[in-house]
Amino acid sequence: MHSTLDRLNALIREVVDLRHAADLLEWDERVCMPSGGAPTHGEMLSTVRKLAHEQFTAAEVGRLLDAAAREVASADLDADHTRLVAVTARDYRKATQVPAAFVAEQAEAVSAAQHAWGAARAKNDFASFRPHLERVIALKRQYINFFPPADHPYDVLLDDFEPGMKTAEVKVILDELRTGQVELLRAIASRPQIDDACLRVTYAEADLYKFAVEVITKFGFDWERGRQDKSTHPFATAIGSNDVRITTRFMERYPFSLLFGTMHETGHALYDQGVSRAHHRTQLEGGASLGVHESQSRLWENLVGRSRPFWEYFYPALQERFPAQLRGVTLNHFYRAINKVQPSLIRVEADEATYNLHVMMRVELEIALVEGKLDVSGLPAAWNNLMEEYLGVRPPDDTTGVLQDIHWSAGLLGYFATYTLGNLISAQLWERFGAVYPERDAAIRCGDFSTLLSWLRSEVHQYGRKYQPQELVQRAAGSKIDPGPYLRYLRGKCGEIYGIGWKA
Amino acid sequence: MHSTLDRLNALIREVVDLRHAADLLEWDERVCMPSGGAPTHGEMLSTVRKLAHEQFTAAEVGRLLDAAAREVASADLDADHTRLVAVTARDYRKATQVPAAFVAEQAEAVSAAQHAWGAARAKNDFASFRPHLERVIALKRQYINFFPPADHPYDVLLDDFEPGMKTAEVKVILDELRTGQVELLRAIASRPQIDDACLRVTYAEADLYKFAVEVITKFGFDWERGRQDKSTHPFATAIGSNDVRITTRFMERYPFSLLFGTMHETGHALYDQGVSRAHHRTQLEGGASLGVHESQSRLWENLVGRSRPFWEYFYPALQERFPAQLRGVTLNHFYRAINKVQPSLIRVEADEATYNLHVMMRVELEIALVEGKLDVSGLPAAWNNLMEEYLGVRPPDDTTGVLQDIHWSAGLLGYFATYTLGNLISAQLWERFGAVYPERDAAIRCGDFSTLLSWLRSEVHQYGRKYQPQELVQRAAGSKIDPGPYLRYLRGKCGEIYGIGWKA
Repeated sequence: MHSTLDRLNALIREVVDLRHAADLLEWDERVCMPSGGAPTHGEMLSTVRKLAHEQFTAAEVGRLLDAAAREVASADLDADHTRLVAVTARDYRKATQVPAAFVAEQAEAVSAAQHAWGAARAKNDFASFRPHLERVIALKRQYINFFPPADHPYDVLLDDFEPGMKTAEVKVILDELRTGQVELLRAIASRPQIDDACLRVTYAEADLYKFAVEVITKFGFDWERGRQDKSTHPFATAIGSNDVRITTRFMERYPFSLLFGTMHETGHALYDQGVSRAHHRTQLEGGASLGVHESQSRLWENLVGRSRPFWEYFYPALQERFPAQLRGVTLNHFYRAINKVQPSLIRVEADEATYNLHVMMRVELEIALVEGKLDVSGLPAAWNNLMEEYLGVRPPDDTTGVLQDIHWSAGLLGYFATYTLGNLISAQLWERFGAVYPERDAAIRCGDFSTLLSWLRSEVHQYGRKYQPQELVQRAAGSKIDPGPYLRYLRGKCGEIYGIGWKA
Repeated sequence: MHSTLDRLNALIREVVDLRHAADLLEWDERVCMPSGGAPTHGEMLSTVRKLAHEQFTAAEVGRLLDAAAREVASADLDADHTRLVAVTARDYRKATQVPAAFVAEQAEAVSAAQHAWGAARAKNDFASFRPHLERVIALKRQYINFFPPADHPYDVLLDDFEPGMKTAEVKVILDELRTGQVELLRAIASRPQIDDACLRVTYAEADLYKFAVEVITKFGFDWERGRQDKSTHPFATAIGSNDVRITTRFMERYPFSLLFGTMHETGHALYDQGVSRAHHRTQLEGGASLGVHESQSRLWENLVGRSRPFWEYFYPALQERFPAQLRGVTLNHFYRAINKVQPSLIRVEADEATYNLHVMMRVELEIALVEGKLDVSGLPAAWNNLMEEYLGVRPPDDTTGVLQDIHWSAGLLGYFATYTLGNLISAQLWERFGAVYPERDAAIRCGDFSTLLSWLRSEVHQYGRKYQPQELVQRAAGSKIDPGPYLRYLRGKCGEIYGIGWKA
């Protein structure tokens, strides 16, 4: 058996090497590249990605996969190599299902749509973007048809980001979540609002950067296998698990986004750094899904980084670093400020209690677009109505409304849901970890994050792509993806901060 | 005709893209990579280089080249596409002449030799390095035999770095140069020595860095198509001509090496940035040879950067930036200090009047090793004897003697000569530019480097690899590579500085 798998692995290793190279080239483009290098970078990146795709979809890979599947048919279903063959075969099927000509057509359409979106957003001109979005949606419908019929056409899109996840499952989850979050928001709106002026004064970027570095070093970010840079939009990228890079940015208007953004990207990075060496240079490298990845970033950013125990440990150091800004600001005052809930127009600026509502309305609109129940022409009005219904605010224009996100212009339908699934999973893991390790909060209060990291490593990180999200969450948290823990977490935290009593 | 060339170009473009990617990966390894990423980077780099080699040496490329050669046989011999076919065919022949198994064996030997060299150098233990170097030399002899017999076996090695250059030509050039430089050195030794203490005090790295950036911006370094970083060893790398990156370093012991090193790397970068767009993504991208490349770096570092007119323009700004260090140091004093001649043991620290002597003895030793007239066992003694003969200094140990350079352990035989050829070409170009543009020095005295850069662009840079070094130098400077101008330059400059009278 080993010779088949060995030959397969040898082929895949080169594919992974090429993907690593492409990922690093993309990092360079966003962090280092001088502007004049853009055309050259575009050329080399497209050649490297093309070769990676060609080598992965080669007929020889297909033959070896068939042979390997027969050979592992009687083996332990949970053994690494059994899973490896299954995951690789699944990836191979998906990669070979879509004709190259379609991929090229879609790439061209998406490139034009992104340009159009940028211009439309700047001029608050949805009409000029509309035909591009219509083409993107039409191509997505065509894309869906390349795959075997699913329970719901949207399943195909979801599957690209959240393998195995069904539209029906997502709908049930979001329905329960929406009811709970809207109810919570209404309760908060009736309470006195929080004064967060202490976050809006001037903070020196370099000092906040240093503070953030101290925090993520404590979290366990491995600087021998990673680095941090600045970029326009923060992101994390992994060249395998031994070179994991995060970026951050500074915004004068909201200086603390540097800190929370750094914790967020570190959550992604810790996941990538924690994947088992056994999966190195195989299709099991990387994270189980975007949702599971997001669960890690949100866990460190919010469950840890916006928690009271965290700040009981770190606030004295912060106050010492910023004596002028934080003089007279108590720990409690600061804690309430960074957890202030306020419905707003922009998703990426939303707090923990409103973020999912932004996501949910996008998911609903996407499904309606794919089902054909909504036309692109009706999108702005539908957007504004849902904003008002869920968040109680109405965008004054499309720039701060339907045109705010790049995703649709980039052809990313089925993606938004992963943000919320990530939030839900983060609370499930958090609750479970608290159950198996009752000293959870006490340890964080002492600046000890090592038990948490070890637990995440053993329950989530090490597996890479071995398990699909639902199976992984079931194993780690004891149930499938479930909005219960997140709602409990939010009600507990906001209830305490805003003085709201909740029935159990 | 065009369809053959078009098909050939399409294949080559992907090869160039892969080389660009590999070059950028190497840059990243030296500038950005966290240490733990080394194995992953090694894997992806080797895969990308391997694919580039496989695609370039594919039989299809050979067939298209044969067809293209027939088609351009009657075309203008100097047309870009005629030259492109000829250069590509030459590169193809060289790339396909050496069996892959040998390349792998050599790579393995060289990797072991480099490790052994590092350890031997640290412990002053030539004996432990000796068997490795013997293996490298034996493999070089084998390598030579893969090629058609040349006038001299060393021609084959030279040709890898200085296309078309013959050992016989190099010997004639170096003989004349040696006589002149040794004579000059003796004359200088009899004169009062220069006090360069003003260069040895403390200078803040950040201030020198800023000053160097001002200088190279004036030179014409295009920041839209380039960047500068720090690295252990300074280098320049070009991802095509639109993304050209240089690095620098700071040494407390000799702070000004940051400035001169930056000017040196900028010389390389200006060449790369100046290659015609027509050669982009073809085998004509890049420089004509290492020697011609070095002529550009040395021209900007020395002919410009250590000249009196240059400092007449820049010294006031330097003095203003470093008032404490340069108080009371006159322009003349500073100019003499940065041009101080002093025979020393280490090549990379040598001045303009001794540098070539370091190179020449290495070239002589290499030729003797390849001819079999010298054994590796006799190398340290031969080294020390030549040091004494040419430079009048004798290394106290092999660490500061025969073990100082990495080149031989890296399998780079035939490389050293290019440093001196570069110096010679730089003086030829400089003399010629002065003849066609008599205001040369006056312009530099005013901080105007644009005419110089334009002239180099039109005479050298734009052509990329279209011409071989001797042809390029003949066209640009009016004669083949010739030590005359460099000796005239040195005698003039050192004669003035040291008060030595020279016969015309």
